[in-house]
Amino acid sequence: MRPLSAWLPHDWRQRLYIIIFEADTREGRLFDVALLAAIVLSVFTVIISSVPAVQATASLPMAILEWCFTLLFTAEYIARLLSAHRPLRYALSFYGIIDLLAILPTYLAILVPELHGLIDVRLLRLMRAFRILKLTAYVNEAGVLSIALYNARRKILVFLGFISIIVVIFGTLMHIIEGPEHGFTSIPVGIYWAIVTLTTTGYGDVVPVTALGKAITGFVMLLGYSVIAIPTGIMGAEIHSVMRKRAITTRTCRQCHTEGHDPDARYCKDCGSELGPYQSDLPPPEPS
Amino acid sequence: MRPLSAWLPHDWRQRLYIIIFEADTREGRLFDVALLAAIVLSVFTVIISSVPAVQATASLPMAILEWCFTLLFTAEYIARLLSAHRPLRYALSFYGIIDLLAILPTYLAILVPELHGLIDVRLLRLMRAFRILKLTAYVNEAGVLSIALYNARRKILVFLGFISIIVVIFGTLMHIIEGPEHGFTSIPVGIYWAIVTLTTTGYGDVVPVTALGKAITGFVMLLGYSVIAIPTGIMGAEIHSVMRKRAITTRTCRQCHTEGHDPDARYCKDCGSELGPYQSDLPPPEPS
Amino acid sequence: MRPLSAWLPHDWRQRLYIIIFEADTREGRLFDVALLAAIVLSVFTVIISSVPAVQATASLPMAILEWCFTLLFTAEYIARLLSAHRPLRYALSFYGIIDLLAILPTYLAILVPELHGLIDVRLLRLMRAFRILKLTAYVNEAGVLSIALYNARRKILVFLGFISIIVVIFGTLMHIIEGPEHGFTSIPVGIYWAIVTLTTTGYGDVVPVTALGKAITGFVMLLGYSVIAIPTGIMGAEIHSVMRKRAITTRTCRQCHTEGHDPDARYCKDCGSELGPYQSDLPPPEPS
Amino acid sequence: MRPLSAWLPHDWRQRLYIIIFEADTREGRLFDVALLAAIVLSVFTVIISSVPAVQATASLPMAILEWCFTLLFTAEYIARLLSAHRPLRYALSFYGIIDLLAILPTYLAILVPELHGLIDVRLLRLMRAFRILKLTAYVNEAGVLSIALYNARRKILVFLGFISIIVVIFGTLMHIIEGPEHGFTSIPVGIYWAIVTLTTTGYGDVVPVTALGKAITGFVMLLGYSVIAIPTGIMGAEIHSVMRKRAITTRTCRQCHTEGHDPDARYCKDCGSELGPYQSDLPPPEPS
Repeated sequence: MRPLSAWLPHDWRQRLYIIIFEADTREGRLFDVALLAAIVLSVFTVIISSVPAVQATASLPMAILEWCFTLLFTAEYIARLLSAHRPLRYALSFYGIIDLLAILPTYLAILVPELHGLIDVRLLRLMRAFRILKLTAYVNEAGVLSIALYNARRKILVFLGFISIIVVIFGTLMHIIEGPEHGFTSIPVGIYWAIVTLTTTGYGDVVPVTALGKAITGFVMLLGYSVIAIPTGIMGAEIHSVMRKRAITTRTCRQCHTEGHDPDARYCKDCGSELGPYQSDLPPPEPS
Repeated sequence: MRPLSAWLPHDWRQRLYIIIFEADTREGRLFDVALLAAIVLSVFTVIISSVPAVQATASLPMAILEWCFTLLFTAEYIARLLSAHRPLRYALSFYGIIDLLAILPTYLAILVPELHGLIDVRLLRLMRAFRILKLTAYVNEAGVLSIALYNARRKILVFLGFISIIVVIFGTLMHIIEGPEHGFTSIPVGIYWAIVTLTTTGYGDVVPVTALGKAITGFVMLLGYSVIAIPTGIMGAEIHSVMRKRAITTRTCRQCHTEGHDPDARYCKDCGSELGPYQSDLPPPEPS
Repeated sequence: MRPLSAWLPHDWRQRLYIIIFEADTREGRLFDVALLAAIVLSVFTVIISSVPAVQATASLPMAILEWCFTLLFTAEYIARLLSAHRPLRYALSFYGIIDLLAILPTYLAILVPELHGLIDVRLLRLMRAFRILKLTAYVNEAGVLSIALYNARRKILVFLGFISIIVVIFGTLMHIIEGPEHGFTSIPVGIYWAIVTLTTTGYGDVVPVTALGKAITGFVMLLGYSVIAIPTGIMGAEIHSVMRKRAITTRTCRQCHTEGHDPDARYCKDCGSELGPYQSDLPPPEPS
Repeated sequence: MRPLSAWLPHDWRQRLYIIIFEADTREGRLFDVALLAAIVLSVFTVIISSVPAVQATASLPMAILEWCFTLLFTAEYIARLLSAHRPLRYALSFYGIIDLLAILPTYLAILVPELHGLIDVRLLRLMRAFRILKLTAYVNEAGVLSIALYNARRKILVFLGFISIIVVIFGTLMHIIEGPEHGFTSIPVGIYWAIVTLTTTGYGDVVPVTALGKAITGFVMLLGYSVIAIPTGIMGAEIHSVMRKRAITTRTCRQCHTEGHDPDARYCKDCGSELGPYQSDLPPPEPS
């Protein structure tokens, strides 16, 4: 660990760290935005270079672009290693591994061309896009969504468990009723059909032919059509609940540091001492 | 009833009962989890043994696995009969019948091989999965959902009645407009089409061909697309309502009669006087 | 009008009226339920007699059943005319016309067999099913839904206007981009495609082939997928709002007859006089 | 600017301005409604004249109709220019450009017939339909929706960003798993498939064939089916929030400081003392 960071003077490392890993300075924010643009562009390159027409006419420029992005991301990876306080910990972290995986395939493909397909791993870097949430007013909004999702996790699991059982039972039923001659060749195919139907996707690649099968299909569709109300209702209530809590959790008592007083409260609810006047520079809280 | 339970000493029966039927002891919880794993695995066996490729190459191991699960479930069924306070009542209960149906087909298939298909009945045991709700923090969450569904039941029935009438009327209309030559061979097929369309599933196996038919189809789709808002709105309001009832207290300040103090508040937020201790017999309020 | 009602003694007419038109007596309720059963059965007869297999094998019993229902409904129609206070007003009312249309085709078909298809008009009688809402606890629930729909009507119209414009613009765009050679033979077909896509129905009978067409399709789907949130949100908020109002609109001031006092109010909000204690035999109001 | 407006006496210009640009007088409202009718009719003409059967049999009447609308809209455009306080500013405004684009193609098509297809630009005038929101009680309702959408914009962007990443990752995955032989010819096609599947549209033009592909498809559908709850929940909470803000008053009793009195209340509901008159500069609260 020492040997690696010793390649850079301490204050350089410090500045590099602030630029690369943080986003509170102008340079740090600029770096994050530029990196995101580079990631999106490199993903875009991967996407359009998969089009047969592009492969036929522009494989060389695409290969050059790919190498440019690979070198860029390699430089970024080295800079991260150099500036990180604990390079090894970064290298083994979630984003560290993704950053490495994003550049490795291009190098490996020189030796083993078959590995070139792995370049698509670069797509995973897209997840850095979520870092943009760090940058702006989106923190708060993404926070509302993730807290709501977290609060709703158990209800959603109960719902998904219910859906799974429904899907297995109806998939089996249709396998027995319609049988292989109508495309329901096995129970897994029946389950696939049940998911396609319950979610009201309706590809139409496996459809019922018998009258009973059509009647059951109608029931499954109506079930899926009604049951969607459950996760929707859960999320609606949870988001509402989080938004409402947000509106009241800013004030802190000066005596006992208890948080979460109502905007109209005059006394601390925990120690009874008088609260200071409510002041806020924030956009008016959403009182739900 | 006596004769059956007489096979086991009383304290053994008692312990077996606690392990098998209850889930408040460590052993009881372990048993429930193990049983659930066995059910899921046996269902998984049924599912993959229906795949033609598996049938061709691995029918023997599958048959062995099936017999293992059958013997396991038979042992469990006997243990339940032995330990139950009223074996007959258990045997005739909902789960008792399902437990029996889950093991019967394998035995019957020895005599009458045609009955083997009935083994799929085992899938119904999946419903024991709902017992997992007994085990954990899911009780509360599932409670919110089922109370909300219960409160919403009449509104949802009114909605489904409305949908049924819509579906019958438009199914008949399309049978008349499009006729058998475009696939609408009868009114039931028209109703099937109407459900496929109103729920926005859209298999595409029966589609309008005439201009008028397409216009009506567009209307039905837009109707289905808008009308989904009704069950969704119902559930949203009901879940919100249930969650709120759980979360809100009726604590009132004895001095100024201000209501709605947080469960953890010690002083009135409006006049600063001390509140009495919070007492509640209700299930713990939702953290949301 | 006189001549018609003169066929029955006054008190008979009165009793018949209460049975047929009202539903507050035991006989009235029984009549309504029996009538509804007859309507559902007759509709069911129409539905299954449209199945080719039934037409081939059981056309005679179906014809007999049809005549039975026709005679039954004819008797009911005459009874309604005889007992109504103003027979002509009934005959020209919405339900009066439907009741007549439901029996006419069978008679006319004797003279002009081609008119037989019109028997499907009988389906419209299904709308009497909504009368069941008069019978039971469903009144309140259906009331919540219809008040919520009524309150939301303008928001939903704004939404549907927005959807219409989107659908016309994208339908035209795809007609120009994809053209007749890919199935978009005219702008109406394009609009049909746009509705199929925006509502996420996705029949698959008209699909984009060009790259640009597919890109636009993706956009329209995501739009439809997100925009469904608007009617859903509207209905959710409105149902919530109505349910909440329900919870507080029962008390009436004895002095000034102002309605809608909060359950916890002690004084009339309109005249300041003291309110009586709050009493309710209803199921506990849903306080949202 | 002077030269143009100098063609009309000042008071004529003034009256024309009020009629054409405003909607608060009877004439102004009439003009707006008539204009909207003309726009809808002209769009309808464009739509049905694209139908092959109409093109074959009625191309002349359609051409005449088109010229009538073009001349009408030209007259309206000139009147707008003449009456506008700043004609150039109008001409360069959003609606000014659309108004010009709506009439230009018909004239240009005399010289260059190929430009005739551009007449579809007229569809953009449909956006003037949103002006109807100025006319009626719809202002308030549309206001609720647009404020809710505005408040929800960041949450919806976070959601769409999440959806985009999901769609790119699964599109690439399916391109690798299913490959060109099953229709997934490139990553863009894979992304198209992912959007079709995630939004539960399900055209069925590109479907998985391999078992792994079907399993992933099932997962994507269930994801799309559950995740729809997020935008729905967001909008539900935001619309609720906006509606509530509109409806709740901040009236407080001067004697006991109880808050939240109804706008029509005259006495405090908690102590019976008289309330001051209700004063509000806000738009009228929602009736819901």
